[in-house]
Amino acid sequence: MGGDNAPQMVVDGLCRVVRDGADPHILLFGRSEQLVALVDRQPELKGRVTVRHAPDVVSSHDRPSVALRSGRHSSMRLAINAVADGEADAVVSAGNTGALMAMAKFVLKTMPGVDRPAIASIIPTTRGRTVFLDLGANIDCNANNLVEFAVMGEVFARIMLGVDKPSVGLLNVGEEDLKGNAVVQLASNLLQNSQLPIRFHGFVEGTDLAAGTVDVVVTDGFTGNVALKAVEGVSRLFTKFLKQALMSSRRSRLGAWLAGPALMEMRRTVDPRRYNGALFLGLNGVCVKSHGGTDAVGFASAVAVAVKLIKDGVVEAIKQDFAMLHAPQMNDVRIVAG
Amino acid sequence: MGGDNAPQMVVDGLCRVVRDGADPHILLFGRSEQLVALVDRQPELKGRVTVRHAPDVVSSHDRPSVALRSGRHSSMRLAINAVADGEADAVVSAGNTGALMAMAKFVLKTMPGVDRPAIASIIPTTRGRTVFLDLGANIDCNANNLVEFAVMGEVFARIMLGVDKPSVGLLNVGEEDLKGNAVVQLASNLLQNSQLPIRFHGFVEGTDLAAGTVDVVVTDGFTGNVALKAVEGVSRLFTKFLKQALMSSRRSRLGAWLAGPALMEMRRTVDPRRYNGALFLGLNGVCVKSHGGTDAVGFASAVAVAVKLIKDGVVEAIKQDFAMLHAPQMNDVRIVAG
Repeated sequence: MGGDNAPQMVVDGLCRVVRDGADPHILLFGRSEQLVALVDRQPELKGRVTVRHAPDVVSSHDRPSVALRSGRHSSMRLAINAVADGEADAVVSAGNTGALMAMAKFVLKTMPGVDRPAIASIIPTTRGRTVFLDLGANIDCNANNLVEFAVMGEVFARIMLGVDKPSVGLLNVGEEDLKGNAVVQLASNLLQNSQLPIRFHGFVEGTDLAAGTVDVVVTDGFTGNVALKAVEGVSRLFTKFLKQALMSSRRSRLGAWLAGPALMEMRRTVDPRRYNGALFLGLNGVCVKSHGGTDAVGFASAVAVAVKLIKDGVVEAIKQDFAMLHAPQMNDVRIVAG
Repeated sequence: MGGDNAPQMVVDGLCRVVRDGADPHILLFGRSEQLVALVDRQPELKGRVTVRHAPDVVSSHDRPSVALRSGRHSSMRLAINAVADGEADAVVSAGNTGALMAMAKFVLKTMPGVDRPAIASIIPTTRGRTVFLDLGANIDCNANNLVEFAVMGEVFARIMLGVDKPSVGLLNVGEEDLKGNAVVQLASNLLQNSQLPIRFHGFVEGTDLAAGTVDVVVTDGFTGNVALKAVEGVSRLFTKFLKQALMSSRRSRLGAWLAGPALMEMRRTVDPRRYNGALFLGLNGVCVKSHGGTDAVGFASAVAVAVKLIKDGVVEAIKQDFAMLHAPQMNDVRIVAG
């Protein structure tokens, strides 16, 4: 029931998932009458979808604490419960991010050794794609949190980007060792001196996000959220200015028509719907957040992210890396980090 | 001598300034032989430029503390001295930002009542232009620092954007009052409850930067630096993808030629050179920082910023606002802010 155009958008997205060749069984939570009517209209979904009634709805304005208390029978909560109960392998939601994180943490619990879960997503770059985290789960972070994000982001990149040894950068105001605040400096030290099998690149700057300098960019949730939204905003600005320019005269409209196929290809490359699907890293289960304003194409991308993460065992892979992080040699480092 | 293509770029930029109709007298600091030769080649600069010899050069890699100690005879330092001595009304430099800030703070001193100077610049938005600060002068900020940035940024916007009562927003991870960390929440409280004649909009998000929701966006130097560079990076990415798309086939190249004039106009709107020239706010004097990688067009923009700020008395205007900030009723609020 979450997202601007739910549940129609969700059902249409599921049709796309099936058409794209995935073969999932879907538990669909929400107002059952409404959902059954929508699903019945889609022959592709026949036999693939089980509708489960959820009387409550978490609104996009509900505070996480309120949603947690009063949303026990919401579609969001029941879907997360299904993962905890082993009925489902993953949950995908386009609903309220804060509420989803609060419920997922409460029900699925944080992995052993993980202090704070993080939100990670993939962004398009000059060189391909880069994993970016944390995107807003943790407003205040210490150095250990950033190290944990690096470990979890590295696994996410290995699976989602298919890179063997992803490089990891720490977002800062400059590349030099002495730049930045005490938190990023300590985190950089920990990553440099740890026994972790992470290819740590060092500090990166804001420009390195789009440049694709590293496979994983790690930052706190405040900076990550602001930077991601700033980039989204300027992408929209650019698209708007481009449209205005191309529509400004008869001559430019003819030019736009001729360049149309090439421009469509470019649009596809930077289409935010293709990059939809952020993972809540560090939980005992796969929980993927879709953008609330997306459409069926975007929602299908988010479901595809969940399917890939399940198939490639992301939860187990992160657990293994955290076992290494908490091996004796790292414990020493952690004491220094205090 | 600062900047990637200095001093040629600086001299060419000065020619543009003169051609654009400004009538400044210019003190040019650097290696005099080199500068005299360059200036002599430009008839437009005849009688307008006095070259002053500066034997030292601050490199772009020098740490601010090192530059401060060993750059006493650098072009940067002597140019700042000229402002302190009343010989010049403003200094413009394309050199090392950290060194320039350290020297400007040391020589010009911070204004009475200002705790920390900030770096402010103008960015293009859907609605026009927005002032953005701090862009990296202050990595760790408390709530009072953010309030000071709001006061200074508001004056900068009044002068540079020509807006009577600029609206001011505080950058955060959401618009709701309860979002964000303790620092932005306290700063928002202070701005809401102050007697300052500031039109405080409340919290804004990363997307509001390009949307132009407010005239002034205030944040700490860490977030501001990362967000600005992230936006710069994605603008470059977009430009690159657009060029690639338009050059990808004979048909798209023809289209690009037809749409050329319209695309040039769009390019002009977002051209970073037009927005070049960041002000160090809160000092007893006008100090404008040009991007190091800019060209003559960009450097001329930075000089134009300095000229406008001098003519409109930015230093006096900020001093007046700070007198208000420190009037009794605000002192009470400041105690709460601790």
